[in-house]
Amino acid sequence: MGRWQPDAPGRLRRAAMELYRERGYDRTTVAEIAARAGLTERTFFRHFADKREVLFAGSIVLQERMVRALAATDDAAVPIDKVAAALAAAAGMLTDREFSRQRQAVIASHRELQERELIKLASLSAALADTLRRGGVIEPTASLTAEAGVAVFKIAFERWIDDRNTRGFADLIEESLAALRAVAAGG
Amino acid sequence: MGRWQPDAPGRLRRAAMELYRERGYDRTTVAEIAARAGLTERTFFRHFADKREVLFAGSIVLQERMVRALAATDDAAVPIDKVAAALAAAAGMLTDREFSRQRQAVIASHRELQERELIKLASLSAALADTLRRGGVIEPTASLTAEAGVAVFKIAFERWIDDRNTRGFADLIEESLAALRAVAAGG
Repeated sequence: MGRWQPDAPGRLRRAAMELYRERGYDRTTVAEIAARAGLTERTFFRHFADKREVLFAGSIVLQERMVRALAATDDAAVPIDKVAAALAAAAGMLTDREFSRQRQAVIASHRELQERELIKLASLSAALADTLRRGGVIEPTASLTAEAGVAVFKIAFERWIDDRNTRGFADLIEESLAALRAVAAGG
Repeated sequence: MGRWQPDAPGRLRRAAMELYRERGYDRTTVAEIAARAGLTERTFFRHFADKREVLFAGSIVLQERMVRALAATDDAAVPIDKVAAALAAAAGMLTDREFSRQRQAVIASHRELQERELIKLASLSAALADTLRRGGVIEPTASLTAEAGVAVFKIAFERWIDDRNTRGFADLIEESLAALRAVAAGG
């Protein structure tokens, strides 16, 4: 112990998810998560503030990457294409469907976690709108584009983690974006 | 007391809002709200479950009216026009800007209330999507249309209660809807 642990955050996340499913989120302790991962509590707290953060640390990284991808688009690009770039960045991160599916099941079973998830999505929308405004997009277009982008993200995500789904997240993002365009065009 | 009180819910709402602003939401009791409105606690509880419901009872009525307006549209109407009908119903209800503005200030100052507000908006989106599906709209179009409708609602609402705004809610809804169409068209 004390030495560098290969992929400690990944091991802690997987251990936490196992325990949340086996005995429930409320009854799982940080000590148990660390033990299951074969790591110390100290190592746990080096990576996560608490057991809730195991579920939400990824959301922060996701938001950062989406904002960065949006900010990197050309100022001349139309708003929807800027948001499409952010969604493509998200698609590049969401590849572990089993983890996402288990995470969603834990969140769905706790009102407090559901509320936190909604706050995270609202924060994502606000960050995207802010980045659009900095890139010269005016209101209400900036906020609407951001909200529409988060809607596309949410719906593609729900479909992606559906048991019957066999398609990739990027593919579903593209389909949702196309459906949004069709809806707004009055199709 | 005990006799019918004209506009008891309205008086209780206004009294509650005054107290929430004067002494804060946390420090206000139901007894104080009733006293300020010149009514009994019993009358309060005939209209609201608790002091939080004074802020959110309107959201339930709003959702019901929006769902009803959407359900009443022709099955042949395109999804965005169905949602536009729901938004028009909302605009018909949101006329007391001062109340909405004060309510929003109270909600913004309490994380628990903010979370509840987000849950209410998620519930509105789910109800609209459900009504669209019953009207024959398939997925992901139903969910996307509902989310887009809620986005238009949220953004029009934020602009409506802005101090500098002098325009009506219906007008702002129309503008937000037009902006959404332009965004999705790649404008």
